[in-house]
Amino acid sequence: MYRTNTCGELNSSNIQQQVCLCGWVQRIRNLGGMTFIDLRDRYGITQLAFNMNTNAELCEQARKLGREYVIQVKGKVVERFNKNKSIPTGDIEIDVTEINILNASKLPPFTIEDHTDGGDELRMQYRYLDLRRNTVLKNMVFRHQLAIETRNYLNQLDFLEIETPFLIRSTPEGARDFVVPSRLNIGQFYALPQSPQQFKQLLMIAGMDKYFQIVRCFRDEDLRADRQPEFTQIDCEMAFVTQEDVIQLFENLFIHLFKKLKNIELNNFERISYHNAMKRYGSDKPDMRFDMQFVELNHLLQHRDFKIFNEAELIIGICAKGCGSYTRKQIDELTDFVKRPQIGASGLVYVQCLDNNTFKSSVDKFYTQEDLQNLAAAFNATSGDLLLILSGKTEKTRKALGELRLEMGNRLNLRDKEHFKAVWVVDFPMFEWDEETQRFYAKHHPFTSPKPEDVALLDSGDIAKINANAYDLVINGVEVGGGSIRIHDRDLQKKIFRTLGFSESEAQQQFGFLMNAFEYGAPPHGGIAFGFDRMCAVFNGIDSIRDFIAFPKNNLGRDVMINAPYQISNEQLKELSIQINYSEKDE
Amino acid sequence: MYRTNTCGELNSSNIQQQVCLCGWVQRIRNLGGMTFIDLRDRYGITQLAFNMNTNAELCEQARKLGREYVIQVKGKVVERFNKNKSIPTGDIEIDVTEINILNASKLPPFTIEDHTDGGDELRMQYRYLDLRRNTVLKNMVFRHQLAIETRNYLNQLDFLEIETPFLIRSTPEGARDFVVPSRLNIGQFYALPQSPQQFKQLLMIAGMDKYFQIVRCFRDEDLRADRQPEFTQIDCEMAFVTQEDVIQLFENLFIHLFKKLKNIELNNFERISYHNAMKRYGSDKPDMRFDMQFVELNHLLQHRDFKIFNEAELIIGICAKGCGSYTRKQIDELTDFVKRPQIGASGLVYVQCLDNNTFKSSVDKFYTQEDLQNLAAAFNATSGDLLLILSGKTEKTRKALGELRLEMGNRLNLRDKEHFKAVWVVDFPMFEWDEETQRFYAKHHPFTSPKPEDVALLDSGDIAKINANAYDLVINGVEVGGGSIRIHDRDLQKKIFRTLGFSESEAQQQFGFLMNAFEYGAPPHGGIAFGFDRMCAVFNGIDSIRDFIAFPKNNLGRDVMINAPYQISNEQLKELSIQINYSEKDE
Repeated sequence: MYRTNTCGELNSSNIQQQVCLCGWVQRIRNLGGMTFIDLRDRYGITQLAFNMNTNAELCEQARKLGREYVIQVKGKVVERFNKNKSIPTGDIEIDVTEINILNASKLPPFTIEDHTDGGDELRMQYRYLDLRRNTVLKNMVFRHQLAIETRNYLNQLDFLEIETPFLIRSTPEGARDFVVPSRLNIGQFYALPQSPQQFKQLLMIAGMDKYFQIVRCFRDEDLRADRQPEFTQIDCEMAFVTQEDVIQLFENLFIHLFKKLKNIELNNFERISYHNAMKRYGSDKPDMRFDMQFVELNHLLQHRDFKIFNEAELIIGICAKGCGSYTRKQIDELTDFVKRPQIGASGLVYVQCLDNNTFKSSVDKFYTQEDLQNLAAAFNATSGDLLLILSGKTEKTRKALGELRLEMGNRLNLRDKEHFKAVWVVDFPMFEWDEETQRFYAKHHPFTSPKPEDVALLDSGDIAKINANAYDLVINGVEVGGGSIRIHDRDLQKKIFRTLGFSESEAQQQFGFLMNAFEYGAPPHGGIAFGFDRMCAVFNGIDSIRDFIAFPKNNLGRDVMINAPYQISNEQLKELSIQINYSEKDE
Repeated sequence: MYRTNTCGELNSSNIQQQVCLCGWVQRIRNLGGMTFIDLRDRYGITQLAFNMNTNAELCEQARKLGREYVIQVKGKVVERFNKNKSIPTGDIEIDVTEINILNASKLPPFTIEDHTDGGDELRMQYRYLDLRRNTVLKNMVFRHQLAIETRNYLNQLDFLEIETPFLIRSTPEGARDFVVPSRLNIGQFYALPQSPQQFKQLLMIAGMDKYFQIVRCFRDEDLRADRQPEFTQIDCEMAFVTQEDVIQLFENLFIHLFKKLKNIELNNFERISYHNAMKRYGSDKPDMRFDMQFVELNHLLQHRDFKIFNEAELIIGICAKGCGSYTRKQIDELTDFVKRPQIGASGLVYVQCLDNNTFKSSVDKFYTQEDLQNLAAAFNATSGDLLLILSGKTEKTRKALGELRLEMGNRLNLRDKEHFKAVWVVDFPMFEWDEETQRFYAKHHPFTSPKPEDVALLDSGDIAKINANAYDLVINGVEVGGGSIRIHDRDLQKKIFRTLGFSESEAQQQFGFLMNAFEYGAPPHGGIAFGFDRMCAVFNGIDSIRDFIAFPKNNLGRDVMINAPYQISNEQLKELSIQINYSEKDE
């Protein structure tokens, strides 16, 4: 036993006890007669005291320690003269009688403090030091707690956690797979799962009834800021359930998790259709912490002299409460914001609602004060408000105004990180048209069940109108999970594959085992999957999932700490019967 | 809601209730006036009753159902005439008023019964049907429970479950890695982890103090009967601990798990050194459910006229109680057993202890009755016992007699599957000489700490004598886990790499990030990892880990259900900048 106690547990009830502590030197304060060391471990900080008058040799020894040295100290718990009420151990300190250096430390490349001087790249390279910082540590603790609470909650509801394989088979539908060459089967590859989708469906066919798994998944995509090539999901599936059953059960899970981990009552889940989410918020993951719904304005603003509006497919606006006094500069900022290439609006029309029912707008020459008054009425705007209006093609304009809405939410502090608002987005369209490849894709995935009342549309050909029994859970504008009721009928599944452009033999070759399984008593089933990394971030009001991953990869998919990926030996390549085509990419 | 209850919960307290059940048709019994169906789900079986006299149409409908049809039934819970006391629902049946066929089923390729008529390959191909069998289902439930109990136990001791990456870097030490070509980094590969060894050590350096993870690991080995290319381990690490701390804590984990999941008190853990395990049982994973220790006989049997014994490095034997009356045929069987190539003994000497201190042996012409009496005394043998003796090179002879000991244990029913005996094997040698490559390898792995008192031997060169702070947990002759105290000192780690034949630059290139981390305050630490699949099997007295894996691979590393691995497309190969060398392997 290296220690009797951790650095987080001693308090005034331990005074006079002989103890032995281990930890890292956080800080040394040399006050002449006294030297104090903050000794840190995962559990907290305990102050060590050394007195030059009573033990000069030991005090000298203490002064020579460096930051992040690992030491073991023995001594007596004593009452502290200057108590520190901000930490649990603040009433006591250790009157040290012995120091053992367990390991020295070079000066760390950045400070191990909540607000460190280390840049991103440096902290990732020395992630093992970054993880010592309290802010990162507490994220890891939170992640652990979220997992164990989720597991116990689902276990108590008779869910079984069943592990599905990682070495599976590549399927062309969906994102790009990571593949693993098979040494024993030349020219063949395993794929790493993008999700256990087909296995969880097979588990339902196997009669497992309620399945979950907290499981790593993999996608070889070009990485964006907040994507990782490997990520974790809470994957769930149930047999004999309707969409309503799934939604209710997992709503209760989230209520439980928020209560247990954040002491927050998250009871006010809303429901909104995909159609309405797009229409009112310009997003299928609306941030509903604040209202600021879109108002459609074609009937009010078209058929005047303003050509841009007359030619627009859609004119929509939002009302920013209390922003009527925005300066020219502030309005220019908003115009610049919507004109950024990612958003792509060509301009922004504004109307300032002034006192006494007067208005100032960027389109004053096309509209009378009365027109603008009618307009303001459509928003229920009052004096002091600012109306922001975009126009153009429907989908693009909605998305652009959705971004502007979020920006105004930020400016107006309507997106409080301590406030949580959950919404189920339902009634997703089954298929999505892709302009580039000129074909329909499954909006969720090809195993999603169309709504029974829409199945007939598969034959009539109007497939864009088919809605799916699919649902997303959105919290504070972040999609934390999504799922669907699945197809359990072989013929319907074949029809969906056909609609997606698979030939009979392609479908059979790639999904044959699932389609065959449908012939042996597949129960109705459905499920959901939650992005676990993202859940951790959302619960803590943090944007980056990377803060909740112990060893994340950078935007190029590299682990800069271990320097992976890396070359492998020629022997390894030969054993795998593969070789590298260095030229191929240059063509 | 498809159902009001499961098929496992209704009993006499529910009589007269209207219920709705869903499940699979297990069996249909047509008794003329009455038809009975056993409806099965994960939770149990409930009997459905149909009366030809009261509802002929429904009864006809029931008779037309097939095995494994998925149905929903509505009806009333009624008392059963012939109660079945062997199942919880045996007091009641459902007087059915409505049947809905949720999905039909083709006739399954094998019977869904505890004792099925399906062969291994067929059951693996239709694993989703195999999993419906109660014997396989209960293995999955057990696995789930073992995981959740382990997690909660470790959580309550302040362990954090921290997820480590799956896309890491290949290291040549140890078994062969599975690798994953990187699309974004041409010519570079990730490797899938054989264990999170280095990451868990980094987590200790990061101050996480107590880490665990139930995690998938990967090894690209030529598969033996009971190996899988992907397997799960309970991976654990602690800082500021001695070997004794680790052993105590995980001994308590196993005591808890056996009590909770099997209601068995597993309190009698023994300890044995590697040296004594080999000397007494010829194995570093001795089955200690029975004694039958080796007796060394050189001093008794050498220096007579028996050349084979005179030339042997070691003569050892075991005493098989009560086998003195074995027939010639039985003894021949044992001789054949030890002469099998896997065991490789050249012969077996036996001595039968008869009545009145007389002996019959295969070496009667070399030894007097008095010699044999002395021999029997060395074994504490009494009349009716059988002595079995092997001789030859020390290591090989011990291993062969170890196998014979297990065989005799089986024959004498000393290896009761319901009886559990755990032993810690300690004091492993640090290095192991490999004849083939003529070098030393780390017996555990190169991060294992030598015993402090043996470190000096690294310089003196007698490295075969160095023992490690390493330990294995063995239950009923199966190694369920192993671990060690790790090196936390950079210089010692460098010395170990040098001893293993790594050049400075090789060590730095492959393990540099860990060695660098040692310079920033690495605490003393150690840990252990348990084979989770194997634990499941051992707890249930079953030999095959495959029975506890939902979707296992066969001996060629194939998943015959999904037919993986499989070819990938030329586009995929091109994107990854690799090509296949079909010829290479033929050379």
